[in-house]
Amino acid sequence: MDARPVLVIGGGPAGLEACRGLSDLGIPSVLVEKTDTLGGTPIHARYATVTPYMKPAAEAMADLIEAVDDSDLVDVRLNTVVTASRGDAPDLVVTLHGEDGEQEVEVGAVILCTGFTHFDPGQETQMYGYYGHDDVITLVDAEAMFSDGEVVRPSDGQPPKQACFIQCVGSRDRQIGNQWCSKVCCGIACKQAIEIRHLVPDCRVFVFYIDLRAYGFWEDDLYWKAQEEHNVAFVRGIVTEITKRGDKLLVKGEDTTLGRPVEVEIDLVILSVGMEPSEGTLQMAKVFDLPLEHHGWIEVVGAPLDKVSTSRPGIYAAGATTGPADLEDTVTSAGSAVMKAVGFLARQARGAA
Amino acid sequence: MDARPVLVIGGGPAGLEACRGLSDLGIPSVLVEKTDTLGGTPIHARYATVTPYMKPAAEAMADLIEAVDDSDLVDVRLNTVVTASRGDAPDLVVTLHGEDGEQEVEVGAVILCTGFTHFDPGQETQMYGYYGHDDVITLVDAEAMFSDGEVVRPSDGQPPKQACFIQCVGSRDRQIGNQWCSKVCCGIACKQAIEIRHLVPDCRVFVFYIDLRAYGFWEDDLYWKAQEEHNVAFVRGIVTEITKRGDKLLVKGEDTTLGRPVEVEIDLVILSVGMEPSEGTLQMAKVFDLPLEHHGWIEVVGAPLDKVSTSRPGIYAAGATTGPADLEDTVTSAGSAVMKAVGFLARQARGAA
Repeated sequence: MDARPVLVIGGGPAGLEACRGLSDLGIPSVLVEKTDTLGGTPIHARYATVTPYMKPAAEAMADLIEAVDDSDLVDVRLNTVVTASRGDAPDLVVTLHGEDGEQEVEVGAVILCTGFTHFDPGQETQMYGYYGHDDVITLVDAEAMFSDGEVVRPSDGQPPKQACFIQCVGSRDRQIGNQWCSKVCCGIACKQAIEIRHLVPDCRVFVFYIDLRAYGFWEDDLYWKAQEEHNVAFVRGIVTEITKRGDKLLVKGEDTTLGRPVEVEIDLVILSVGMEPSEGTLQMAKVFDLPLEHHGWIEVVGAPLDKVSTSRPGIYAAGATTGPADLEDTVTSAGSAVMKAVGFLARQARGAA
Repeated sequence: MDARPVLVIGGGPAGLEACRGLSDLGIPSVLVEKTDTLGGTPIHARYATVTPYMKPAAEAMADLIEAVDDSDLVDVRLNTVVTASRGDAPDLVVTLHGEDGEQEVEVGAVILCTGFTHFDPGQETQMYGYYGHDDVITLVDAEAMFSDGEVVRPSDGQPPKQACFIQCVGSRDRQIGNQWCSKVCCGIACKQAIEIRHLVPDCRVFVFYIDLRAYGFWEDDLYWKAQEEHNVAFVRGIVTEITKRGDKLLVKGEDTTLGRPVEVEIDLVILSVGMEPSEGTLQMAKVFDLPLEHHGWIEVVGAPLDKVSTSRPGIYAAGATTGPADLEDTVTSAGSAVMKAVGFLARQARGAA
């Protein structure tokens, strides 16, 4: 089989799973990660636990990182980015820019695992006052607090008496151009609501939502559990305004189930920010000359029956590189990409033989 | 590498994708299918198109079937079931029961792709009158009609003037024991609503739902499209009763957004039936001594970061064998299972060498 390695770009869950899988199959890989740490968003954003079963994120990721670190077949390049490519797989030459300058590497296939970035709730919409009110935070900020073993109001360091989640911030929103559902935020909000009730048992927790998209087993493992075992209140309705009242926030909206306006004093507002293609994903689209699909993520050509093949043979994409993805999607698509990349190399080797 | 083949059970999308992938990697497989036809539910249930991009199902599946038929490395056994197993992977002996009687086969690993069955809306709940009214059908019945290029009322063969979908039939329902969301029915209903509007342009179409779970790109590719381009009416609310009025059906429920009762005369009611583990899935759990998770599907031990490894080394599960899955989930998990099964065999071979 072709001796050239598979280039895996991005050291998050998808990239790690891809390298672990390639290594198990005896295939060398080069793993390029732009930061100085493997683990991707769960590690960089300091997730406390992963959805839905609340395994500590550091522990969950450690298994994957260890497998990659322990393998002789994975050449890990931290603080490195891919700046150029020429030729076509399996004769692809990529330029890596790392700490020791530039280097050209021949690779047989590529798996893009550059994923997503969290929507910045202050950049395109100020309606929820993320930059105006200290006590308006995001799902990501909340994870970092849980990692520190606490939930407090940033303004005074006190635990909240009433907290709420606002769903679909940066998702399902034509005005800001994000015409997709980010898929995971409903499940994460249910999980975080439970975590707040654990950490601050007398805190009342509300979730304001449009449709509660707790698909599959998340229905009862997260959504029912949050309601029945942890007394979380789910309010179907959009929040239209957040204002200050004394040292609290006044959250105004409508309960569309009861058909009446809602006004609640809240100590801590958590914005369930959605997913956008990461800068790395957009850069790799340029480096490898890959078209974006109409939402702006890297296009795959055979969905739903092939979610990983891009328009260029030998170049695959996994995880949230091609659209919103939960962790199951992320690791299974990484496996699918490995299978297809190695199959591609084997077919090329057979063709060449 | 181990010369024993991988046993793939079930000739639907997951099983076909697994065998195609194994074949590309040069690994032999035995594909066991209990019916006389490959293609699984999309073929057996006569799906017209696959969600979300409406590629004809027969065409979509033909690619997969052809790849398997054309491969010398896939040993296809139709009209065959697995009746027993002994030993552990990679030294597993399975008994196949086919047209020529019983045969024992040594296999190195197993990928279970036995999937789901559609909820039978007459078996456990009669509230929607599936067996009482001719013009109450299911998503599956509707697909077969679309395959014939028509939508008609079964009672008189006439095209409907008003049609409606009722979501969550056999899903999100503690009373019947199905405490999960079946994940795909919201997307399929959006797709079918569009198909009805194509086939019968003057038919009004309603969708009664609890939460419209059009996750990811389905948000605008299906849900917005159905509303904006095809004028489908989505009504948030549960249908409580269906009765006869003349030659029509009277559908009664509540529009929880407007907070008032709804009563609509409907010519054709389509029940969005959910997924349950198939008989084959439950049988294979017994044959391979695999525990079921608390909803009754085959348990995987590492979710969300491993959705395919069962509690037994060398035995993997893909697609809707482990829970509700859309087609993307199904094919990506098949790829993941192939990667892990071949990795398992390679590790065993290295260990034995």
